[in-house]
Amino acid sequence: MRIGIVGGGQLGRMLALAAHSLGHEPHAYDPGPDPSARDVARLHRGSFDDPRALATFADGVDILTYEFENIPARVLEEIAERGRAFDPSPRFLALSQDRLLEKQALSDLGIPVAPHRAVDSLADLRRARDELGERLVLKTRRLGYDGRGQRRIADESEIREAWRILGGVPLIAEAWIPFLAEVSLVATRGRDGTMVFYPLTENRHEHGILRLSRAPADVPGAAALAATAEDYLRRLAEHYAYVGTLTVEFFVTERGLLANETAPRVHNSGHWTIDGAATSQFANHIRALAGHPLGSTRTPEAVAMVNCVGALPDPNAVLALPGAQFHDYRKAPRPGRKVAHTTLVGPTPFTPERPPLETLLALSPFIVG
Amino acid sequence: MRIGIVGGGQLGRMLALAAHSLGHEPHAYDPGPDPSARDVARLHRGSFDDPRALATFADGVDILTYEFENIPARVLEEIAERGRAFDPSPRFLALSQDRLLEKQALSDLGIPVAPHRAVDSLADLRRARDELGERLVLKTRRLGYDGRGQRRIADESEIREAWRILGGVPLIAEAWIPFLAEVSLVATRGRDGTMVFYPLTENRHEHGILRLSRAPADVPGAAALAATAEDYLRRLAEHYAYVGTLTVEFFVTERGLLANETAPRVHNSGHWTIDGAATSQFANHIRALAGHPLGSTRTPEAVAMVNCVGALPDPNAVLALPGAQFHDYRKAPRPGRKVAHTTLVGPTPFTPERPPLETLLALSPFIVG
Repeated sequence: MRIGIVGGGQLGRMLALAAHSLGHEPHAYDPGPDPSARDVARLHRGSFDDPRALATFADGVDILTYEFENIPARVLEEIAERGRAFDPSPRFLALSQDRLLEKQALSDLGIPVAPHRAVDSLADLRRARDELGERLVLKTRRLGYDGRGQRRIADESEIREAWRILGGVPLIAEAWIPFLAEVSLVATRGRDGTMVFYPLTENRHEHGILRLSRAPADVPGAAALAATAEDYLRRLAEHYAYVGTLTVEFFVTERGLLANETAPRVHNSGHWTIDGAATSQFANHIRALAGHPLGSTRTPEAVAMVNCVGALPDPNAVLALPGAQFHDYRKAPRPGRKVAHTTLVGPTPFTPERPPLETLLALSPFIVG
Repeated sequence: MRIGIVGGGQLGRMLALAAHSLGHEPHAYDPGPDPSARDVARLHRGSFDDPRALATFADGVDILTYEFENIPARVLEEIAERGRAFDPSPRFLALSQDRLLEKQALSDLGIPVAPHRAVDSLADLRRARDELGERLVLKTRRLGYDGRGQRRIADESEIREAWRILGGVPLIAEAWIPFLAEVSLVATRGRDGTMVFYPLTENRHEHGILRLSRAPADVPGAAALAATAEDYLRRLAEHYAYVGTLTVEFFVTERGLLANETAPRVHNSGHWTIDGAATSQFANHIRALAGHPLGSTRTPEAVAMVNCVGALPDPNAVLALPGAQFHDYRKAPRPGRKVAHTTLVGPTPFTPERPPLETLLALSPFIVG
């Protein structure tokens, strides 16, 4: 099958590599001159907000998916009007594009989220502070990622500063959550409704960008948390008749899980599945789209993944670590840009304070600005 | 690095996929209109016996390797005269191209092989029968693979028949070996001389074509056999200053291992390493060539691989089996042609007489002529 992927970044690249193994033919649609997926997919150049060009792309493939989340809703509608369907569901994508709608949808399904308020004025923001407490996180409702478009607020001067920087577009204020850990759950739902779940993954963000993921998560009560998270993802996926891989990031708090963010796609915190799971999140996304049975998510050993941001590491130093793998996205390095990831797989859990993970973290650049 | 692979068949395809993960740029040289590697490597069309075209290909890449074994020696010499080096060593490749030289080289290194004689006439063949015993295998010294170019001989009428079919080119007669099992060892040697070994793999051939591989090998005394085989591959690789992945197929006999065939490359009996080992034979070949440290060959679970020959299976039936993966080479099916392979990975060994491996064997076509 010809699998059309809107977006040719590293997620498109890794989806394309998974598609090849199964004998499918990946195509990638991207506006850039030199996207990450260029050497592993047939490339179609076009803007993400050009419905005509995207429709032509859609006509040339058998299956349509996306790795780029900010496709304008009107483009998705136009494709749907032509009788072509995107997976995963554009209804779910629309939610993921708006932090307020996302939180409301999660709440509607009984999935706990942080207390929050819509903020469209400085007065709204002050009211949110009065109702939610002194410590807030102010975020743009749309187009935020990797820590962009958000500010922490702890006092009145930071309220004015945050409003000055972010004000003018629809915002959301969220109560600041004192979390014990950040975790995520990656799952895939097939066309027949079957769901498979990867082990709960523990994440560490720095400057709002994922730095480190470890699986299985090393948090107290992990088994019960995983079962709860699986229940939440099942509710979401079934409600939206979701087909493909999806991810929810959670805070682990004293009172349990709070859903923080959804992603209607393969996710950075699931990159370790390429090296650590029987079937990767990318292969399972392709299986779901193509109507194949889903693959085993069995993860026989412990895994850690470290992002390389802003610069590449010395590959020989990384690959010399026991159980290490290196994935280069072939992107031009820029501060804040994810250009590669590395993984460790082995029989005993990896600890950030001990080699080899300590060494891997030291070897992996993290240049954010 | 630009990695030039002479040959664009499925081995080139899987090498190219491994090269992409490490951020290298694979190029494939092949005479065919539609080689297996076409969508995953930059394609260069040319004949395997055209030294000029191959030299031009060599000039455009940083590293030169091959997956096609029958490159004429004069082509390799011409490339060497231009100061470009192939890995693995063309000296080793030359041996692998001639069954008589191969057996002599193995013997010289103290690696046991079957009793054998050069055969260039019917008289030679009768003399071989008198010296080696009634039951023989007559093989062409060059260009034989997948059971082509060989005949079993058990009596005088079969001697004349075998000579009629194979006579006229240099031949080798080998004593027929009553073996307990067929096994192979895949290993990789790095530029710094480091070697890594995969678990000993047990193989089953049908009509001279590999049908099934299982790892680790389920044969009596497997650990001691593996240690012996590792010693043999170390001798070979060190003697030839080998860089890359190499494979030796052995018969397990009452008296121990007999080396049957060498391959200066990744090998069909190592395809399971993509799904079952921490680092695949393809990734380790690329690591060796690029001068990277080699990756772990750890194999935490049991693995089985089944070839699909002459036709593709129903991918959905295959992928529905627990722990199954499917690798489609995107080749036009023809009798005797390997077009895909499937693997099973799981916590307990797979048995050909029991599901799921029994089912996988039944699902996988094996059409040889």
